[in-house]
Amino acid sequence: MDAAGADTPILLAERLGTVLVLTLNRPQARNPLSEAMISALGGQFAAIADDRSTRAVVLTHNGPAFSAGHDMKEMTARRSDEDGGRAYFKQLMTACSAMMQMVVRLPQPVIAAVEGVASAAGCQLVASCDLAIAGEGARFATPGVNIGLFCSTPMVALSRNVSRKHAMEMLLTGDLVDAEHAARVGLVNRVVPAGTARERASALADQIASKSTATVKVGKEAFYRQVEMDLGDAYAYTVEVMTQNMMFRDAEEGIGAFIEKRAPKWQDQ
Amino acid sequence: MDAAGADTPILLAERLGTVLVLTLNRPQARNPLSEAMISALGGQFAAIADDRSTRAVVLTHNGPAFSAGHDMKEMTARRSDEDGGRAYFKQLMTACSAMMQMVVRLPQPVIAAVEGVASAAGCQLVASCDLAIAGEGARFATPGVNIGLFCSTPMVALSRNVSRKHAMEMLLTGDLVDAEHAARVGLVNRVVPAGTARERASALADQIASKSTATVKVGKEAFYRQVEMDLGDAYAYTVEVMTQNMMFRDAEEGIGAFIEKRAPKWQDQ
Amino acid sequence: MDAAGADTPILLAERLGTVLVLTLNRPQARNPLSEAMISALGGQFAAIADDRSTRAVVLTHNGPAFSAGHDMKEMTARRSDEDGGRAYFKQLMTACSAMMQMVVRLPQPVIAAVEGVASAAGCQLVASCDLAIAGEGARFATPGVNIGLFCSTPMVALSRNVSRKHAMEMLLTGDLVDAEHAARVGLVNRVVPAGTARERASALADQIASKSTATVKVGKEAFYRQVEMDLGDAYAYTVEVMTQNMMFRDAEEGIGAFIEKRAPKWQDQ
Repeated sequence: MDAAGADTPILLAERLGTVLVLTLNRPQARNPLSEAMISALGGQFAAIADDRSTRAVVLTHNGPAFSAGHDMKEMTARRSDEDGGRAYFKQLMTACSAMMQMVVRLPQPVIAAVEGVASAAGCQLVASCDLAIAGEGARFATPGVNIGLFCSTPMVALSRNVSRKHAMEMLLTGDLVDAEHAARVGLVNRVVPAGTARERASALADQIASKSTATVKVGKEAFYRQVEMDLGDAYAYTVEVMTQNMMFRDAEEGIGAFIEKRAPKWQDQ
Repeated sequence: MDAAGADTPILLAERLGTVLVLTLNRPQARNPLSEAMISALGGQFAAIADDRSTRAVVLTHNGPAFSAGHDMKEMTARRSDEDGGRAYFKQLMTACSAMMQMVVRLPQPVIAAVEGVASAAGCQLVASCDLAIAGEGARFATPGVNIGLFCSTPMVALSRNVSRKHAMEMLLTGDLVDAEHAARVGLVNRVVPAGTARERASALADQIASKSTATVKVGKEAFYRQVEMDLGDAYAYTVEVMTQNMMFRDAEEGIGAFIEKRAPKWQDQ
Repeated sequence: MDAAGADTPILLAERLGTVLVLTLNRPQARNPLSEAMISALGGQFAAIADDRSTRAVVLTHNGPAFSAGHDMKEMTARRSDEDGGRAYFKQLMTACSAMMQMVVRLPQPVIAAVEGVASAAGCQLVASCDLAIAGEGARFATPGVNIGLFCSTPMVALSRNVSRKHAMEMLLTGDLVDAEHAARVGLVNRVVPAGTARERASALADQIASKSTATVKVGKEAFYRQVEMDLGDAYAYTVEVMTQNMMFRDAEEGIGAFIEKRAPKWQDQ
């Protein structure tokens, strides 16, 4: 439980049509990825994984920080454990990494909307999302190196978004980079006027939510699987995916509508 | 056979010196990658794979579209097959993926010259080429998501050209991106004035064709093999490649010419 | 031994505080990666690998070229060996690749400072560094294709820095690209005014040297290991790294200092 604002939910969940908007809500503490926050996010993802009425997720924040990453006070308190906190730290990192991988494995696309600072595991969370929109004032950092704790789990997501030298610069210096830089190197998709990231991310979510849910699901899953394969395996795998996708009712409807120049009517919509 | 222009070849093949220019030639139908087109492309690639007099390939198009991807009417017609078309779809996707991989495995560099829309498997074909030149009006999309058929095979090539979030944005929205964006994210090498892509691609092809053919062949093959290895394996493999390349007559000639400050004379030229 | 300047060391090693500045010093010969230069670089890296008082390395050059790559005269002289030089070439390429991998495996970050032309194995050396700063006049090429010897070992490093089409363009054309292009595609981190690359790289090295040495070491090692793993393995591995890192005295000190809003005092500093 966070001292600041303990009487409000740590994570706000708002449903706008078929889009779920999750808002990190410990603004005064800079939305740390505390045990409670990791658990709240994981709980939301688990709850919608099989829910076909939720077609996209926007992940945003209240306050000046998207998220400052792990809760250093919470972690430090466990140094007095018998093992110096080792077992707890491992459990916490495992839980956090599992939550990050849930974002990747979730059938629904997840779109980050960032208006402030996303650092350490907060930056990792943005990198883990399928898409990210940054307001002009957004900034990003992996500053663990400044406190003796290298951002080793964050770099897993970061280095799968941006090229090696750009990732290494953030990791070794710990410096903040601005939204323009983040867009240029591939950490976010685009920069929008300050204060409009959430609105723009929601519009993007609505656009994706208007597509065939079954198709988006199969496509997102296939994307992250094939990207780790060699070329021959990736083609062998996606040929199977395409063939099965062709047999979906939504593909028959969508292709038929395309040929007949009319709007498609999806199964789940 | 395509109704529009059925009396002209589906794929034009023109030899300009040592460069083969292939032109997709079903402009009114937007150059679909129909069975016939896939087969025609595959046939051309197979014919030149062992032909040392062909040193580079330019792949371009007649009409406003580079290629619109698969032929949806041709595919839909097979839904009346006993198995709903399943076997046919798999065979078609396999043939298309094999053709895309022929581009990668061909000893000669293949340069796409794009002046119009390259979408779905058409975008995949551009991504599969070694190099790509886009006219200012060129646009790119992976719009399968709009018709219930995610661009799962196209994304194999796309995601090996551009970073994850950029690929995901194209795949999940289906939106067209312009030539400038395509150059910025790495899908094409550069943007040239509208109407000059073919000419510029041909000049680039001529430049590459003036090099040692044996050297270009060994280099292209090694590139795509090493890029899928880990660092240690990639070095062990390319050390072998370099050592063998040093023993080529062209390497002896080229290095000798370099030291003597004269133009080299290649074995095959 | 290089004829030009044989009475000065081939590689200058200067210690500025905790930063080691290495300067390639065969300016008239364009700093070839001769056997002697490869050996001198390898020797310096080996000497500091276990030296905790060296916290970062700047790699720069005297003269108009960073490095022109392999010494073609030295290699050509061995064509008169009984086997045409084959065994020698393999040994040389193996030694060079081993040196490039030492840069990656060195605990200390290595920052290239480039003011001139870095070509072939010279470009590979820049690509192998963790970070790179380019003066405005710096240029880069992999021109082996022009002399019948494809830059197959250089492309291992190049293609792990820049996307496929950008790498292929450099490899197939052999053309020089300027500093701006190199920054845009990810080969260098940034472009600075001509003549200031060394100074800027040193400032960056000082910044990194002020961090916890143990932390930088564990982070650099983990970066290059996890980047070659699939997502699940990368997280399993880095969870272990993070847990162990949490138990470092520097992490306890750094996190404590962060919470207490004071400057940390590292173990080795």
